[in-house]
Amino acid sequence: VSEPDRQHDHLLPANRLETLGDGVFAIAMTILVLGIQVPQVSEAGLLHSLRVLWPKLASYALSFVMLGVLWIGHYYQFHYIRRTDRTLIWLDLFFLLTITFLPFGAGVLGDHYEDHVAVAMYGATILASGTALLLHWNHATKTPGLVRPELTPEMNASLRKRIIVGMAATALSIAIGLVETRISLVAFLVMPILYMLPTRMERERRARARVA
Amino acid sequence: VSEPDRQHDHLLPANRLETLGDGVFAIAMTILVLGIQVPQVSEAGLLHSLRVLWPKLASYALSFVMLGVLWIGHYYQFHYIRRTDRTLIWLDLFFLLTITFLPFGAGVLGDHYEDHVAVAMYGATILASGTALLLHWNHATKTPGLVRPELTPEMNASLRKRIIVGMAATALSIAIGLVETRISLVAFLVMPILYMLPTRMERERRARARVA
Amino acid sequence: VSEPDRQHDHLLPANRLETLGDGVFAIAMTILVLGIQVPQVSEAGLLHSLRVLWPKLASYALSFVMLGVLWIGHYYQFHYIRRTDRTLIWLDLFFLLTITFLPFGAGVLGDHYEDHVAVAMYGATILASGTALLLHWNHATKTPGLVRPELTPEMNASLRKRIIVGMAATALSIAIGLVETRISLVAFLVMPILYMLPTRMERERRARARVA
Amino acid sequence: VSEPDRQHDHLLPANRLETLGDGVFAIAMTILVLGIQVPQVSEAGLLHSLRVLWPKLASYALSFVMLGVLWIGHYYQFHYIRRTDRTLIWLDLFFLLTITFLPFGAGVLGDHYEDHVAVAMYGATILASGTALLLHWNHATKTPGLVRPELTPEMNASLRKRIIVGMAATALSIAIGLVETRISLVAFLVMPILYMLPTRMERERRARARVA
Repeated sequence: VSEPDRQHDHLLPANRLETLGDGVFAIAMTILVLGIQVPQVSEAGLLHSLRVLWPKLASYALSFVMLGVLWIGHYYQFHYIRRTDRTLIWLDLFFLLTITFLPFGAGVLGDHYEDHVAVAMYGATILASGTALLLHWNHATKTPGLVRPELTPEMNASLRKRIIVGMAATALSIAIGLVETRISLVAFLVMPILYMLPTRMERERRARARVA
Repeated sequence: VSEPDRQHDHLLPANRLETLGDGVFAIAMTILVLGIQVPQVSEAGLLHSLRVLWPKLASYALSFVMLGVLWIGHYYQFHYIRRTDRTLIWLDLFFLLTITFLPFGAGVLGDHYEDHVAVAMYGATILASGTALLLHWNHATKTPGLVRPELTPEMNASLRKRIIVGMAATALSIAIGLVETRISLVAFLVMPILYMLPTRMERERRARARVA
Repeated sequence: VSEPDRQHDHLLPANRLETLGDGVFAIAMTILVLGIQVPQVSEAGLLHSLRVLWPKLASYALSFVMLGVLWIGHYYQFHYIRRTDRTLIWLDLFFLLTITFLPFGAGVLGDHYEDHVAVAMYGATILASGTALLLHWNHATKTPGLVRPELTPEMNASLRKRIIVGMAATALSIAIGLVETRISLVAFLVMPILYMLPTRMERERRARARVA
Repeated sequence: VSEPDRQHDHLLPANRLETLGDGVFAIAMTILVLGIQVPQVSEAGLLHSLRVLWPKLASYALSFVMLGVLWIGHYYQFHYIRRTDRTLIWLDLFFLLTITFLPFGAGVLGDHYEDHVAVAMYGATILASGTALLLHWNHATKTPGLVRPELTPEMNASLRKRIIVGMAATALSIAIGLVETRISLVAFLVMPILYMLPTRMERERRARARVA
């Protein structure tokens, strides 16, 4: 939409990476539920049949929230990324590849939540998403002309830190899952909740906005 | 796209929540029909096989219209919402989580429309969507800097009222469904039709536009 | 994106109807192929198994092209529609409802292409799409403030005529299908090809552009 | 969004072809994984069941990357295409038709990767995509008023050349597949990696940017 100046004409505007990304996330979020079969009539009644589905429903809700955390990471990065080069496009596509794999991982987890292989595969998918997101951000911020000048070093570091902390927590959850999958699943559930809290920067600015 | 001023730089432009939301709604609306199996050849003929599908087809049409009502609510809110903070993003994601669940609820309703458990689960999903939409609007309108100054108190109240009335009607339909599911389903069908009528504000303005 | 002036503040900008519509069409076009099962190993070989799928593949290609014709109709209308009211939104949603039904109709046609019930249902879906598109255009052009002033009466009539001609051709194809489904299917295939030809207006303007 | 001047009013702005295209690609990329069934509990354990899926997982990853290459081609073309006529829209739709077929081709390849029919059909799909993309670019660049004046003859030729080279490589891979499918699959895997490398133009400009 915006006209890149002549000097940057090997760079593309970033808006289509946002559209493609939003599409992939929207679909991944919505097809999670396709993995859950509508229960057929049984002697025990519909309520019972639905109750039996709880591991699948929990895996669906968890995975939706995980996708939410990762989407927000993508959203914040593209708030600053203005232009793309070929490398950034491919890093973005690898990130989206991990996103499209999550519905499969969620299906495996819903069916085998007590199996540490399922927990490890699920965690590894999240870890791969985090890695791609981190490489994406590193490339964007280190290549001249890709991010907006408004990006402060403080915000740059904050976005990087949030990914690294999440990856460390995921790695820890996988390790715990090798011993006891239930604790691991609780850890997966707690992690996104931490991402819902405002950052220190956000709290400070909100306080300032109230004063002003 | 628009440049947020310095004072609001912990706020993101709202456009990507619109894109993600439109994607989730578009997919939910389109995959409703995936739950309906193409009938195989039978002795009674294709017309008979299609007629037997009527509860699934009715559940699909009803759910499409319900999604329409909820999408319009989202559309009107984002006509006024300009920027987002982390809390608004998460409220929006919880709203979208309920939307992604609706195709599952529609499948259960199509298979078990005479079971009050199916009717109650379907109604509860709509109720959860309404709750998320209401919390979303409350947060947006009560946090400084998120909505456009053009939002009048009259319109603010009108959007809130429309959600609350719909939720009350849904709660009533669920209660009726515990006694007689057929009446409950009729109520679900009537509700969206009321949402298709223009509001008092719209009628007044249309009248004024004709005079002018 | 654009700021509607005060006088029109009960009207919403039309851009989200475009996004939702593009999403629904993109998904409907892409899930057509989900109805075709990957053939399993058989004695007759893979090539034979794929050849046996030809009615499903033909129904998929036909339906993709039909969706293309309808999408282009939507695209041209929204080239002129700037703002929406509640009625236009609902007419648009009913149009999209018929679009989401097409993958089901395509599945039925692929399995039962020799059954005139399947052909009639498929044709009726196209007819319903055409009706919704026509009502949509009528409402948009007859309500003050919805379309851009650049819309000429010539273009207005041309868009209307193209829908009506298509609907007449579809109705004729359905009628033929009651006698002989094969001719009817050929008619369905020929119809979109006519839509690919440039209109008289387009040919005239192209000629003028060449002269200038 | 932009206002086409009077002279070009039979031309539509190109933005909706981008949105539709991004939608189709996003869905095709995400539903690739729907073809992979979640393994059920077995005596050999989950890890074994997942290992057995490797041809399907490889086909999914390969197809995602192929879609990436084709999407980037579409992205670059629309960086220059500003307006569309009816012919360009239909060429774009034929390109998208080949994209929607790829998930089916990927499913067949995952199940029958040792069958040269599967390899040939997969390659033919890529070849059809390339053909459509080339015709699309030819029409856009040869019709007055469709592309931005900023398009240099150098970039025009570079985009054309990249498609032709890819098509030649695909044709070669299909031919090899008639003799030995394994080599053919390796060739398919290598091809996209070449597309990830920056072009000569990009390398030169990057070098200049560093100097400046």
